[in-house]
Amino acid sequence: MSLNFCFIGAGNLATQLAKALFSKGHHIVQVFSRTETSASTLAQLVNADFTTNPAEIVNSSDVYFIAIKDSAFSEVLPKIDFGNRLVVHCSGSVLMNVLENYSNNFGVFYPLQTFSKQRNVDFKNIPVFIEANNRENEELLLNIAAEISEKVTILDSERRRTLHVSAVFACNFVNHLYHIAGNILKSKAIDFDVLRPLILETALKVQAFEPAEVQTGPAVRFDENIINLHLAELSGMPEYQQLYETISKRIFEQQKK
Amino acid sequence: MSLNFCFIGAGNLATQLAKALFSKGHHIVQVFSRTETSASTLAQLVNADFTTNPAEIVNSSDVYFIAIKDSAFSEVLPKIDFGNRLVVHCSGSVLMNVLENYSNNFGVFYPLQTFSKQRNVDFKNIPVFIEANNRENEELLLNIAAEISEKVTILDSERRRTLHVSAVFACNFVNHLYHIAGNILKSKAIDFDVLRPLILETALKVQAFEPAEVQTGPAVRFDENIINLHLAELSGMPEYQQLYETISKRIFEQQKK
Repeated sequence: MSLNFCFIGAGNLATQLAKALFSKGHHIVQVFSRTETSASTLAQLVNADFTTNPAEIVNSSDVYFIAIKDSAFSEVLPKIDFGNRLVVHCSGSVLMNVLENYSNNFGVFYPLQTFSKQRNVDFKNIPVFIEANNRENEELLLNIAAEISEKVTILDSERRRTLHVSAVFACNFVNHLYHIAGNILKSKAIDFDVLRPLILETALKVQAFEPAEVQTGPAVRFDENIINLHLAELSGMPEYQQLYETISKRIFEQQKK
Repeated sequence: MSLNFCFIGAGNLATQLAKALFSKGHHIVQVFSRTETSASTLAQLVNADFTTNPAEIVNSSDVYFIAIKDSAFSEVLPKIDFGNRLVVHCSGSVLMNVLENYSNNFGVFYPLQTFSKQRNVDFKNIPVFIEANNRENEELLLNIAAEISEKVTILDSERRRTLHVSAVFACNFVNHLYHIAGNILKSKAIDFDVLRPLILETALKVQAFEPAEVQTGPAVRFDENIINLHLAELSGMPEYQQLYETISKRIFEQQKK
């Protein structure tokens, strides 16, 4: 069954999701973005029309995917005529019910992944979390999600937000630690590349184990001597020093449990 | 050229390194650990003798690999007769010169990776950092390292310590963030497994890009609304709440640069 979709937003998530759905034979009718180059770039990839004007969005799409910044919802959505069709957003922390003002048919389609325009991801392994205002819409969203992912689950708004918070730690904050590690190396002119095998192995380890089972390093060994050497090493970077102390203490205390 | 090696220590690193050297045809003469099961387990894997008594360690090995906890050096090493052979340690943060009391031939053999006994790693991609007290020992260590790794570099003690600090952020602290993410999910009975594809993709992204180029999440989007929702969500976990605030602020400020 081939459906018609509109994408409101043309960022990282919209790009990857639209491409995945397009590859399954669905028709991407139209892409909206306030930035013309973003709209036209995605539109071209999925053989769609594009617009930068919310008033020009067609009102006959089967599903509208809202993939814009959460803070832009209240500015953009009131300008769109959704023709009472199914409107879903793709945000981790926005309640489903914010959509009830725009259509009688609404829901959430939340793929838990970090998306970039440059990197294609295989949707097959990406968990997708679904919520809808009624059984019929839920069924439709489950079917669409199951075409691209093997891991589709129904999840309410409250638990989705918890999931999003945890993902911020596991992804966004982790990436920032990679950045800090790179900055520390930069101070001695060592290239970030030396850390790449370590970073990958750290992520691979927890694919099979729980993180607490495979925790390594000075803090988990209670190696105060090394911890103090490291804190001294970071004396010129007080913010990193403080973070080192805080996280080491947390690892130490978790270990005692 | 097949050499004779002794391993002082039978932990994660010793296990993986001894296995890698054994697989290249070297002879592992003896494994020492204060814990008999550790010593005998590794000894069996690499066809070696084992002992739990430092005084029983043979004094005719070509190279001694010290792979015990840094804080145990001063207790264990004075009890060993190294017969003035080449003694190297495998620690990120211990200066090479601490070995000068034990032999006239000493150095460092530091593989930058997180090791577990349960997971075999391919040494080929692991950066190995070498330091030695003279050119001849340096040459020997470079040759041994090059047999198992394609990424061998000479690095002095001071820069090796910097590298170790950065690795604590990129690996040990990252793993602890995985653990925190899992704990947050546990509070709503969601399984850690949903995070695994996200964790892997986050590590894969920085294999090709610099972390700052691929930073995602509410902090980098300046999405204060979401950040405040997340802080409220973490109100029952004040330590995680504080960490969320600290790291978000750092991402935010880094972005402004």
